[in-house]
Formats: sequence, structure tokens, C-alpha cells
Amino acid sequence: MIDPKTQQESPFIHRTAEEKPSPNFKDFLLGRPLPTADAEHETIGKAVGLAVFASDALSSTAYATQEVLVILAGAGTLAFGYVFPISIVIVALLAIVVISYEQIIHAYPNGGGAYIVASDNFGKFPALVAAAALLTDYILTVSVSISSGVAQIVSAYPELFDYRVGISVFFVFFIMLINLRGVRESGAAFAIPSYFFIAIMLLMIGIGLFRMIGGSLSIVSNPPEIESVGELTGITAFLLLHAFSSGTTAMTGVEAISNGTTAFKEPRGRNAGITLIWMACILGVLFIGISLLTREIRAVPSELETVISQLARTIFNGQGFLYLCVILGTTVILILAANTAFAGFPRLSALLASDGFMPRQLTYRGSRLVYSYGIVALAAVASALIIVFQASVTRLIPLYAIGVFLSFTLAQAGMTRRWWRSGKLDPARQPIDHDRAHPLHYDKRWFLKMISNGFGAVCTGIVMLVFAVTKFEDGAWIVLALTPALIVIFLWIHRHYGTMANRLSLENYGEPPPYNVRHRVLVPISNVHQGTLAALRYARMLSDDVTAIHVSLEPADTDKVRKKWETWGRGTRLVILDSPYRLFVEPLLSYIDEILASRQANETITIVVPHFVPALKIHNALHMQMAEVLRRELLSTPGVVITEVPYQIS
Amino acid sequence: MIDPKTQQESPFIHRTAEEKPSPNFKDFLLGRPLPTADAEHETIGKAVGLAVFASDALSSTAYATQEVLVILAGAGTLAFGYVFPISIVIVALLAIVVISYEQIIHAYPNGGGAYIVASDNFGKFPALVAAAALLTDYILTVSVSISSGVAQIVSAYPELFDYRVGISVFFVFFIMLINLRGVRESGAAFAIPSYFFIAIMLLMIGIGLFRMIGGSLSIVSNPPEIESVGELTGITAFLLLHAFSSGTTAMTGVEAISNGTTAFKEPRGRNAGITLIWMACILGVLFIGISLLTREIRAVPSELETVISQLARTIFNGQGFLYLCVILGTTVILILAANTAFAGFPRLSALLASDGFMPRQLTYRGSRLVYSYGIVALAAVASALIIVFQASVTRLIPLYAIGVFLSFTLAQAGMTRRWWRSGKLDPARQPIDHDRAHPLHYDKRWFLKMISNGFGAVCTGIVMLVFAVTKFEDGAWIVLALTPALIVIFLWIHRHYGTMANRLSLENYGEPPPYNVRHRVLVPISNVHQGTLAALRYARMLSDDVTAIHVSLEPADTDKVRKKWETWGRGTRLVILDSPYRLFVEPLLSYIDEILASRQANETITIVVPHFVPALKIHNALHMQMAEVLRRELLSTPGVVITEVPYQIS
Repeated sequence: MIDPKTQQESPFIHRTAEEKPSPNFKDFLLGRPLPTADAEHETIGKAVGLAVFASDALSSTAYATQEVLVILAGAGTLAFGYVFPISIVIVALLAIVVISYEQIIHAYPNGGGAYIVASDNFGKFPALVAAAALLTDYILTVSVSISSGVAQIVSAYPELFDYRVGISVFFVFFIMLINLRGVRESGAAFAIPSYFFIAIMLLMIGIGLFRMIGGSLSIVSNPPEIESVGELTGITAFLLLHAFSSGTTAMTGVEAISNGTTAFKEPRGRNAGITLIWMACILGVLFIGISLLTREIRAVPSELETVISQLARTIFNGQGFLYLCVILGTTVILILAANTAFAGFPRLSALLASDGFMPRQLTYRGSRLVYSYGIVALAAVASALIIVFQASVTRLIPLYAIGVFLSFTLAQAGMTRRWWRSGKLDPARQPIDHDRAHPLHYDKRWFLKMISNGFGAVCTGIVMLVFAVTKFEDGAWIVLALTPALIVIFLWIHRHYGTMANRLSLENYGEPPPYNVRHRVLVPISNVHQGTLAALRYARMLSDDVTAIHVSLEPADTDKVRKKWETWGRGTRLVILDSPYRLFVEPLLSYIDEILASRQANETITIVVPHFVPALKIHNALHMQMAEVLRRELLSTPGVVITEVPYQIS
Repeated sequence: MIDPKTQQESPFIHRTAEEKPSPNFKDFLLGRPLPTADAEHETIGKAVGLAVFASDALSSTAYATQEVLVILAGAGTLAFGYVFPISIVIVALLAIVVISYEQIIHAYPNGGGAYIVASDNFGKFPALVAAAALLTDYILTVSVSISSGVAQIVSAYPELFDYRVGISVFFVFFIMLINLRGVRESGAAFAIPSYFFIAIMLLMIGIGLFRMIGGSLSIVSNPPEIESVGELTGITAFLLLHAFSSGTTAMTGVEAISNGTTAFKEPRGRNAGITLIWMACILGVLFIGISLLTREIRAVPSELETVISQLARTIFNGQGFLYLCVILGTTVILILAANTAFAGFPRLSALLASDGFMPRQLTYRGSRLVYSYGIVALAAVASALIIVFQASVTRLIPLYAIGVFLSFTLAQAGMTRRWWRSGKLDPARQPIDHDRAHPLHYDKRWFLKMISNGFGAVCTGIVMLVFAVTKFEDGAWIVLALTPALIVIFLWIHRHYGTMANRLSLENYGEPPPYNVRHRVLVPISNVHQGTLAALRYARMLSDDVTAIHVSLEPADTDKVRKKWETWGRGTRLVILDSPYRLFVEPLLSYIDEILASRQANETITIVVPHFVPALKIHNALHMQMAEVLRRELLSTPGVVITEVPYQIS
């Protein structure tokens, strides 16, 4: 594989990397690595894409209606009738946003959603706002979806109510493990439950409508105790706006496809766009259907039984097989919805990292190790939220949706600017901006598209404000405080990389120091055994100036070391440091300090530390990690290198 | 400081370590290190010793009486009268145990208590049982004392009741920090509160008795709601034994002095013994006094108000200044009692470690780093128990005391065996067993001492059985399961050290390989900058056979690297590995694998990795720790050494 041409241009050798991952990467818990880590092979079709990306949006129907009712309950049960008109308005809003996002997908087939669109059209700062909003929402998607999923289980099995927090955290952990295995396996595993949910919900709504028209649909029997939020009030505009805000959570997850366009098979734009429209239609039907039937059977909001459970047992006349299918389907899709966040979070992080706003390691593909940090962090924060808010969807909702609507607004505003600029292009000379990642094309319908995107941006912007105002006290303030904090972190990271590049730069570096310098090697030993000899052998290879150092805690032990050294030390100098009070590291450090103080110019000191590699990792806890201790103490001293010489014991 | 005599015996140089600790060890949170870490200077006198070691035992009086009442409440309030006779029995038991321990202190002035005594007289296994019991009890001392301390606060300020768990965990954290600073400062800080507690309690009991005799002592007004444990029953033998078991918690902490004898000034045995007797007398007076007055004022057990609080407000006629002094004194001594465990836990761990039953690092004195792990671990486990048991003393008590009484029994049984053996010695030829750490002496009163220790062992053994049986269901089973688990861990660690020593031994090792071997050096670089050049310079010092490796993620970046290398690489070979899918570690690893496969006999490969040392530690998170990743992958490959070359950026 060595290219003979480039090899001749010594000193450069150019090679193509092997594609087979190292077998060292296998891990019992996470399974063997995927056959290839090739991005191309990991892409998915429309059917699987719908299952993976739509679960977030569709599953919102499991709680959106109920959250509208919780707010309306503040004005008494008569206000419940407003749930249907509110739902109609939300579905209209959904249509506007989906039209915008379909255009985003075509304009940005390499994915990225709001972050990329804002970055491309507005620049750095608005893009970071979008990124912070999206990251916050990925976390909340996990918390809310899992909490709602567990609420469905609790509806069917009320005896589990007290354990809902524990069950929720367990599910977060479970999805985390699935995601640590890789996205393709998730896709296959998630297709069946997603389609099962769509089928069972359509069946329930169909039968419900049929019975409603036939007049045989009763109202819900034994409704649970009604729960409401805030003080009792009349039917005010504020109340209706507040209820509307809660209902907009039905739209969360719509942006998932535009963020993950790269996961689709080519032609990406077309495949992703069609999937988006399909998803929106199903979402609209389910949401309207559930809201209509909820009003019809007079379901009530409660932590003890979800509206979905009340619907299912009323429509199917009790808690039989079909009822359990609805609960099962809803629970599973909610739990899988959290998966969308687990796929999207590291993907967005990688985008941010490649722009220098998150740790650079996140850009490397393939080594699961790196993405894993993001996945574990997401699971940890989502679990913490679940614990703090006691797995209550109603208490989590005020934190949700602001971020989504902020990103909706930024993405659509960005698109508006894009159409405006593209409309000014000369239709004959297109595409221009070849050097841009997302070249502008002239589009003869640019004005219509600009208007539609602009209208969408204004609508979602207003919703965001309504949400922030009506839910500020309930918890929205947390998100409003968190988003700027995230942006500060992004900028701080960016500045660090800039400073680093400056400091390390070879501009004006001048002539580097020569290669030939003095090299002194120190070998701290606690005993004379095979590991010590391996370290000594390595030290003698580095330099002829080798000093072994023994810290003497017990005179009897030291005599043994001295005797053994006579046999095995082969004339290497051994310094013995007395330590009557059983100090170990301090005498070593002060001796090293002394050597450092008297060293010559350009003298490098290497400390070679023997390191046992036991057969079982856990045994490491039983050995002093001397190299680690010395490294911590001497890291900031120039010209000192600490080397562990591993000695395998097996 | 170099000894001229030993230096002549080249290659040995013998030096005395400097005593000044390295200034690197200072830490903002934990303060500067103590002036010397010399064990001799850290010892304490009788007065401070009483404050440090007796706080555990004396503070037990804050909850022991109440825990007797909780059990008696199971038979109704009439049963409360039994609290006084039960207390008398417990004080008699205390006297027996103290007589035994006074003898232990004289026989084993180097400290160690039950572990040393059992080890010296019975051998390994019984000693490990004692050690496991003591370690368990150190943890519970922290949990119970802190929980009881916070219960006192809650008695005075009932509005804090809901925050008791959080407050408790805060206090554990606080004591942890104090202990991370070192024991001497603890001693000075703890003397005043301990003596304040003794004084204020004696005052309260004195006034209480005076008013009782004078007939002016009323019963408690507005008593809190009575709490009881278990089902309602009559006054049965089981109930009385159960109540007695709870009361024996008054004796916890008596063993602390014998475990920590080494902390006392010389003559250790005498100083520690006198302190023990003083402590026992104070403990007896306080416990009897509190129990008598509790019966007199008809105090009741409750989570909402402690018995101490009921006593104080009845005796001092309301919640005035003296009441607050009692609450404050009790709270502080309980919180400080936890400190005994923080001093004892690492001390016992070090003993176990030097015998090879715990990680060896624990034997090194001085470097706080090492003891710190034990202190932090103790705080973590104690906090976890507080959270699980909701800071309820009544729920924690069943886990307590079993371990204490197990160690009482083993220590006294060991002493019995010791007297039996010493009695068989020839009075003329003493001491014998010069090579033993604790030589036997003939004692003409050996028979009397044997009988007193033996009687103590039988008594505490019976109490332990009573405790285990009556409290098995309440939680004692946890300790009965945990103790064997700890012993298994001790034995597992011991076996590991044995195996290691065998494997590393130089017996039958034969002739070691020669020093002169081939050395090949690889330098993975992601860019060409000052850090890269520092690593390259180091690599060229190690060997002439140096290969730099660049993984090419973006062709444009690679061209830059290639150009810079022409200027700065000074002819060193550069291998470029293509990685179209942005894999980073895998191409590197497979290239290294290839080199390893074709290496010659005795060829060592060193991978030199540039390592930025940023000014702020937190910046490390923003850089790929390549050396760590490679180390993890290549640790088990013989003949590969990974070296980081630190490059300080400041």
C-alpha cells in the first residue's frame, strides 16, 4: 500500500489507512464494533428514517393534549372544551414550520439544521444561540419523553407509581447503552415499535371516531383526580395562551430530520424532505384525533393516569388486550423518542467542535470512545433532571419547547435572509460563491419562499415569547439562564484554541535548539525484581547517565535492596534516601529538585518508573501509581519527562 | 548530607531525606501542609486526647436513652419506667469492658485495639473479622452521630425538619475537609467543644437532680407525638432485651482510645489508660443521669424532638439561653464524634495495609494524597447511609453496635488467651519471645486478669448475639452480610500481593537480556508547531531511528503539514496515513501493529507523544489525551513504551 511515487520524495511516506478497526476496541458490554465505521454504509432509507427521527415528534402527542388540559383545569372543567380549537391552531403552526423546514433540508443537504443555517446566514453569534438552544432541548427531550413513557406504564399499573423515578432513570441508562453501540443497530431495532405505535394509534382514533359518530362513545368512567397548575382563575387570554404554549410541545422533534439529514441515503434532500412531510401528516392526524376524542370522552389531566390511558380504556371498553397495546406502543415510542436526542446530541457537538466551540476530540468519527463522552453526559444530565423534577412531565414541560422554538425562529429567519440574497443574484451567472460550503442558487420563486419562511419565523418567534412569558415562573427561567451560560462556554473554548495556536505557532520561532543535549535518567525503585530490571534496561538504552533511587522506609528492607543490587544492578549508581517517618514521595521530590537546581543548560531529565501491568485491571488499585504522582508534581517543570516502562505480569 | 563512608562503597550513595515537605503539595482548599509530618510531633496529651477520642463515646448519651424508649414504646408508655434499670445494667457492662480495655492499652501500647490483639493471640482470620467489624463501625459512627446531631438542631428549630438529610450531608462534608488537613489541628479545634459539652450536661443533670429532690421538677410539657418500632406488644423478655440492645449503643466509642494509643504522648500506656478511665466515669454519670431524669419528666421518643431537648427545656423551664447551650453543645459534640471515625478509619487501614490486606499505598505516611482516599471514601459511604436511612437515628441504630461488640468480644477473648499463656511462663526467665512485636511478660496477677477479661468477653459476646437476634430484621442483617464480604476482599488483596511477589521474583530468573538493543521511536503528530518540535527533539535524543506519523483527516491540512515539515522536520522521516472517514486512532494503531509484527528480536519501540501543558488544568479537557488513548490500547503489548513530552504553554 506504500505509494512508490511519494515514497521517493523522502522524507514523506503516504499511506492509505486500513479500514479494519483494531480488535482491541471490542468491549463486552457494548458488543463488537460495527463491520465498518464508514459513514456511507451507515445511512438509512426513508422507512427506517421515519422510525428513527419521527419517534420524537410523534411521541409528543402522548403528552401535548394532557399538558393543555392541565393549564385549562385552572379555570375549571368547563374550560376543557378549548382543547380542540387550541389543537387546530397548533396544527396550522405545524404546517407553517414544516414548509420552512422542507426548504431547509433542500438548501442544506449536509445537515445541521438551525446551527448551520444561522451560521451560514447570520454568522457566529446567532449560530451559537441556536446551538445552545438545541443542546438544551436534546437533554429535555430525553427527560420529558422518558417521564411520559413511565407515566403511561404507571397508568396501567398504579402500584408502580412510587417507583416512577427509578424506572425512568433505568430507561435512560438502557437507551444510553443501545446508543453506545452505534446508530445503525438502533435504526433496525426502532422501526418495528415506531410503526406499531402509528398503527395502534390510528386504530384507536378510527374506532373512537366511528363510535363517536355512531353515538356509542361514553364519557370516561372513574376519572382520576384532576390536577391543575397555578391558582384558580377564569378563562382569560393569559390562560388560553398558557395552555397553547403547553400544546406547542406537540411540535418538538419536528426539527430532528433537518439536523440529521446526513444520515439519509442519497438523494439526501429528497429522501429527508419526503420523510419530513410524511411525519408531519401523521403527527397532525394523531394530535387532532386525540384532542377531539379527549374532549368527547371528557378525559381529565392527572399524574396518576394519562389522557392516553383514559382514551384507550374508554374507546376499547376497558383494560383489555387493545388497551395494553396502546399503553405498550405509547411507552415504547416515548422511550425511543429519547433516542433521537442521543443521535442528535453528539452529531451537533461534532459540528460545534469542528468550528472550535466544543472540545476538538468530538470531531473524530469512529472511535466510539469519543462520542461516548457526549452520550454518557447526556444520560447523566437527563437523569438528574428526572430526579429533580420527580419524573413529572407537567413540571418538566416549562423547560422544554423554548429552545425548540428559538431554533425554529433562527433557522427560518436565516432562510429568509438566504432567499433575500439569492433573489438579488443574476439568474444567468449561477451558482456563485463556489468557495462557500452552501453555495447560493438563484431560484425564481425566491420571493414566495422568502415570504413563507419569514412568516414562519415571525409565528414561531411570537410563540417563543408567549412561552417564555407564560411559563417564566414555572421553570422557563432556568433555560433562559442556561442558554447564555452555554454560549459563554462556547466562546471560552474558542478563545482557548485561538490562544493555543498563537502560542505554539512557528512564526518568528527562530532557530530551534540543537538535537544533541545531555540526557540524565533517574529510576526510582522500591524493590529489586523483574519489573525493576526491565525499567533499568530501558533507562540504560536512553542514556549512560543513569541513577537508581531507593527511598528507605525500613532499614531491613533497604539492606535487602542493597544486596540484590550488588547482584543485579550491573554497576549502576544507586542512591538511597532515608525516610524515617515513612514518607515516600517527598524525599524523592526534594532529591529531584536538587538535581534540577544544578542541571546544565539543555540537559533533559527523564524519570523512568517501573509499572506493573497486572492481568486484571482492578489490581491497579493495589499498586501505587508512582508515575501519575510524579507527573502531577513535575508537569509544569520544563525539561523533565516521566516515562512508565510497562512490565506485563500474566 | 552524603555519608562519605557509604559513598565509597560505590555504586551506593546513602542520604538522609530532607524533612521539609515540597511546597508543591500545598492546596488552596486544604491549607498549607503541617510544619513537619513527623509522627512524634503529632502526639497529644491526656486533656486533648479526652476531647478527641472521648467525643465518640460521650456523644452516645445523646441518643442511647432515646433509642431504649423507642423500643419500650412498643409496649405503651407504662413500659418507659424500665429505662432506668436497663441503664444500670448497661453501665455495669461498661465497667467490665473498660477494665478489659485498660489492660489492652497497657499490653499493646503501640495501638491497634481489637485487630492487633486478635492478630497477636488468634492469628490472621479472627483479626480480619475484628478489622471488618471496626471498619463497618467507623462508617456507622459517622452516619449515626451526624444524624443525631442534626436531630438536636431540628428539635430546637422544627422548621428545618424537612432539610435534615441535606444538613447532615453538609456536616459530613465539613468534617471531611477538617480531617484532610491533619489530626493535630483537629485536636486543638475539638478540645473546647468537648469540655463545653461535659460542663453543660453536668450542669443540666445537676440542676435536674436538685429540682427532682426538691420536688419542683415538672413533667415535660407539650410532648411530641410518640414513636415506636415494630408491632404493639406486652412487656416481654424479648422487648426488654431489644430495648437493652439499643441502649448498648451508649458504649460505642469506648474502644477508640485503644485503637489510637499511638496518638498519645509518652508514657503512652499510662496516659491512654487514665484517659480511658476518666472517659468511662464521665460517660457513666451522664448516661445514668439522663436516663433517670428522662423517666422523671416522662420524656417520650420522637423524630421531631429529641429526649435531650425535652430534658433541657423541662429542667431549664423553657427554651432560653441554657436550653440553647445544651442543644449547641450536644450537636457540636455529636458532629465532632464523627471525627473519631475519620481519625480511626485511616489508622486501621494503614495497619491492614502493612499486613498486605489493604492497598499498600495506605501505609505511607505524610503524603496526604494517600490517606485522603480513605477519608473521602468514608465520607461518601456515610453520606450514602444518611440519605438511604433519611438521617433517622432509629433506623440506623440496628446496623450499629454489632461491629463494636464483635470487636469487644474478640479483643477480650484475645487478652484472655494472652494471660493464659503468660501464666505458663517461668517467672524467672522473662520477658521471652524477644522477636515478637508484643513480648509476653509473666504477671503474678495473670489469673485474676484472665478471669476479668474472660468474663468481659462472655458478656459482650452474649450482648452481640442478643443484638443480632433482636435487631436482625431491622437491619442488622446488612452488617452480618457485609462483614464476610469485607473479609473476602481482604483475603483477595492478600492473595494478589503474594502472587505478584512470586511472579516478579528474581529467584530462578537466570541471565537478564543484554542492555544494547535496537530502539525505534515513533512520533504521532497532528500538526507542526512548537510542541511537535519539542517532542521530535526528545525523540532524536533517544534514538536515530525516528519516524513521525501524521493521520490525514483533511487533504488541505496535510499539505500544510508536509510543507512545514520540509522546513522544520530536519530530514526526519514522516509517514502520512490517509483517513478519509475522519478516523484518528485506528489508522495509527494499525500502522503500529504492522511495525510490531515485523520488529526484530529485542527491539524496543517508544512512542513519543507531544503533550501540551496548559496554564489552567481545565483546558486539558479541550485536548485529545493521545498518550492516554495509546497507553490503554498498547499497555499489554510487551516492549512498547509510551512517553509524553510535556510542553509548557504559559
